[in-house]
Amino acid sequence: MAKEGFVVTPWEVRGEIDYDKLIKQFGISPIDENLLARIKKHTKELHFMLRRKIFFAHRDLDWLLDEYEKGNEFYLYTGRGPSGHTHLGHLIPWIFTKWLQDKFGAKLYFQITDDEKFLFKRELELEDTKRFSYENILDIIALGFDPKKTFIFLDTEYCKTLYPQAVRVAKHITFSTAKAVFGFKNESNIGQIFFTSMQAVPAFLESVKRKKNVPCLIPLGVDQDPHFRVARDVMPKLGYYKPAIIHSKLLPSLLGPGTKMSASDPRSTIYTTDSEEVARKKIMNAFTGQQPTAELQRKLGGNPEICSVCQYYYFLFEEDDKKVEEIFEAERNGSLLAGEHKADLAERVVKFLKEHQKKREKARDQIEKFILRD
Amino acid sequence: MAKEGFVVTPWEVRGEIDYDKLIKQFGISPIDENLLARIKKHTKELHFMLRRKIFFAHRDLDWLLDEYEKGNEFYLYTGRGPSGHTHLGHLIPWIFTKWLQDKFGAKLYFQITDDEKFLFKRELELEDTKRFSYENILDIIALGFDPKKTFIFLDTEYCKTLYPQAVRVAKHITFSTAKAVFGFKNESNIGQIFFTSMQAVPAFLESVKRKKNVPCLIPLGVDQDPHFRVARDVMPKLGYYKPAIIHSKLLPSLLGPGTKMSASDPRSTIYTTDSEEVARKKIMNAFTGQQPTAELQRKLGGNPEICSVCQYYYFLFEEDDKKVEEIFEAERNGSLLAGEHKADLAERVVKFLKEHQKKREKARDQIEKFILRD
Repeated sequence: MAKEGFVVTPWEVRGEIDYDKLIKQFGISPIDENLLARIKKHTKELHFMLRRKIFFAHRDLDWLLDEYEKGNEFYLYTGRGPSGHTHLGHLIPWIFTKWLQDKFGAKLYFQITDDEKFLFKRELELEDTKRFSYENILDIIALGFDPKKTFIFLDTEYCKTLYPQAVRVAKHITFSTAKAVFGFKNESNIGQIFFTSMQAVPAFLESVKRKKNVPCLIPLGVDQDPHFRVARDVMPKLGYYKPAIIHSKLLPSLLGPGTKMSASDPRSTIYTTDSEEVARKKIMNAFTGQQPTAELQRKLGGNPEICSVCQYYYFLFEEDDKKVEEIFEAERNGSLLAGEHKADLAERVVKFLKEHQKKREKARDQIEKFILRD
Repeated sequence: MAKEGFVVTPWEVRGEIDYDKLIKQFGISPIDENLLARIKKHTKELHFMLRRKIFFAHRDLDWLLDEYEKGNEFYLYTGRGPSGHTHLGHLIPWIFTKWLQDKFGAKLYFQITDDEKFLFKRELELEDTKRFSYENILDIIALGFDPKKTFIFLDTEYCKTLYPQAVRVAKHITFSTAKAVFGFKNESNIGQIFFTSMQAVPAFLESVKRKKNVPCLIPLGVDQDPHFRVARDVMPKLGYYKPAIIHSKLLPSLLGPGTKMSASDPRSTIYTTDSEEVARKKIMNAFTGQQPTAELQRKLGGNPEICSVCQYYYFLFEEDDKKVEEIFEAERNGSLLAGEHKADLAERVVKFLKEHQKKREKARDQIEKFILRD
């Protein structure tokens, strides 16, 4: 699919995303070297997702740092739509959010939108999205968030707090606006239309609770930005700061650029619950974009930009920039053939999965330390 | 305003209502003598609001009685939109609901839609609608509902129970449907569009709680019917009975037929919180439709159908049908002049208000016996 044909909404990501175009389309700001330097002043080091501009854009991050430097500390808010098991792509903003929590000592609200996924997925019942919520929460906890500073909640279990606030947001959002931003149609159900109000609440919830304005930073996959484009217009009308946002790119599909995302094809990604065998198989079947034969690949080389295996290293599995460059170069110059390339990655992924799955099992006893219910 | 020009929606009642037309327009069934006889079989006597067809229409009341006669008991559900103080018109469905509770020993859910009134009234904050909720609850309790069988709740205080169920309803209501039934526009806010889902929930809440299908009867002012027209389509899709409904006419304005309703003009009705002086003054200024002079009135007589004073007796202040007929006849034959007519009613109303206000004060200590919170 041509880059022109991409679609990025909270409910559909399709085509090969042109992030430069998306910056213009969404009206977000690229993260530049000055901003990175400002962050580094406080964090001492830069997470590889910042160095590599995997977190590539933002809204009002400079303002957030101004406030922070004035002593006005921020809290974090991110979320998960529990439509199924967690895949590796979901981990990107979560891993980065944990880093931010560690570096800034920030409180985190983690919203699980079980209502949303029920409303948007015809085949799912609330019981299903609740079950997936608790599966996903195991992955969140497994990443090592601070239980004293991390508050995870399901919309349907925390709605005595959320709903009255959502109603305050909803009063300021017309159908016109929701339709323009989210593309609702006459057939859209009225829960879908309302839903963005629920997602807006954690962006000012700490201000409600502390009865004073507290800055909020939302790390998210860029597909979720439309919710906050709307919410940011509403917040000042309720007397709150607009939340700052930092946007990540989306983990490319294992099946290559422009192919459909995970929900419709489990071969396109690896779930944290996949067995070693399944994960290996998916990787061995991944798209590399290498030449059709080993001989041609040695002669002509491949393109790491479209190689799923290279991209997996880049996004998640090799923190060392120099090593990533070596892998990319080996792909480029044809010295690394697809089989070996995939087998190397498979080792890394399987190692990660085994450790993660162990932590995930241990997390079962930790849930109540993290969960927030009314 | 001509009878052709009337409008009846949950948020606007305008013009002189033609109830026969409304029956056709809403697709509801008139209450006939057979149905009254069936009710009387169980209640022994008929409430004057039934005898006079103040409760004039229904949906599936015959089905509800079939179920009741098979031993499948029903529960009651009614509600209040707390946009201000309670006026006498609001009491009509409540008084009748209490009678039903007494006669059938039925459990009652009483929903206070503070979220709705906040969403639909630009000038009201949630704090305002909550304050009015608790004012209105005093009036409800003052009417003598059984505290063991009556469960009153505010949407914003019971939303941990209501919201997840509302989402289940919302999934089955398209924007098209909501727009067609409620007349939403592009400027409507997304909370308004969602709201009907919240009002639907108590119509099946008892079935959710008891994990079995329980018939529900909703006594309401006919202006609220559109909510349940939509809800009744959804209920079977969730596996529940459609609720039965019994519809009341709306108390006419003190200012005469076709004049605007209370919200826009406090002279048009009497609030339960009005002082004796205010109530007397409103009644003495009421529209009677009598002739311009006493002489002409004695000669030509008046029309009780358009006389607010006669209508107040009919709807609320004279339970004895014979006495109502005497009052109507005295208006018709010109023997009862406006001044005396009004003064007589004022006595009745003031007596009612004094007693009600006493009970209302006593109700302050009773609230916690009735209220349901998550």
